[in-house]
Amino acid sequence: MSGKRWAYEDFYEGCVIALPEKRVGKEEIVAFASEFDAQPMHLDEEAGKASLLGGLAASGWHTCSIFMRMMCEAFLLDSTSQGSPGITDMRWQRPVLAGDRLSGASTVLSRRLLKSRPDLGLVTFRHEVKNQNGERVILCENPILFRLREKGAA
Amino acid sequence: MSGKRWAYEDFYEGCVIALPEKRVGKEEIVAFASEFDAQPMHLDEEAGKASLLGGLAASGWHTCSIFMRMMCEAFLLDSTSQGSPGITDMRWQRPVLAGDRLSGASTVLSRRLLKSRPDLGLVTFRHEVKNQNGERVILCENPILFRLREKGAA
Repeated sequence: MSGKRWAYEDFYEGCVIALPEKRVGKEEIVAFASEFDAQPMHLDEEAGKASLLGGLAASGWHTCSIFMRMMCEAFLLDSTSQGSPGITDMRWQRPVLAGDRLSGASTVLSRRLLKSRPDLGLVTFRHEVKNQNGERVILCENPILFRLREKGAA
Repeated sequence: MSGKRWAYEDFYEGCVIALPEKRVGKEEIVAFASEFDAQPMHLDEEAGKASLLGGLAASGWHTCSIFMRMMCEAFLLDSTSQGSPGITDMRWQRPVLAGDRLSGASTVLSRRLLKSRPDLGLVTFRHEVKNQNGERVILCENPILFRLREKGAA
């Protein structure tokens, strides 16, 4: 196997990986929303204030994408990741507003080897992302496939 | 209430809304991945072919974002949507490869009024997105909040 920092064997139950801080700017909120989720509360300050979200707020999918970048930088890009079959549960618990600074953690809940593919294992994470006030904005459970260090192909 | 086509009352159980077709190009796959999910199988043809995904494949979050745009065009932008508390279940059942053409449908599974907010109701959908071969790429369950037409604020 390659010299990646993180292989299946490294994700033990209870392992907590910190996610790096990201500031979410107004321009990127509007740019993402214009392309994928052009609802008024994601495009316009006044519409955001008038909405349940209370201000110009990132699309939930934008928040997810930023969270993905945080995971990439924290461990995925230096891992044997082979992708993910999906998201078991994704809660957008609070809006992400323009100017928020996000940070978070990924915790390993469980892991198991795949019977069908002895070189692969599935690691289930609970991911949490918080804003600068310590309020949780995302709570998410999701499994990710990783190659084993020992049995992995070259 | 405003003259939106879709308010809470319009989403009856069993209602099926078709989602418009979207072609997913190589350039947009790479652009999205470069910003949010820079794993090799989302950036490079050869790395994609060598991966479980079998080709240059869109990030799961990119597929979700394209699906969001399909929902926006189909009904959300002409609705009383107030956003969503999250995703109950999101399955990335097949990779979305460069050149794929996606289409899909949103089906209303159930709906209920909010006790705490008589002007709002929660509609739970099952969303499906398929590729040009009729193979499902996304299966997703998700609740969305809508204002009522009758009791809604101006």
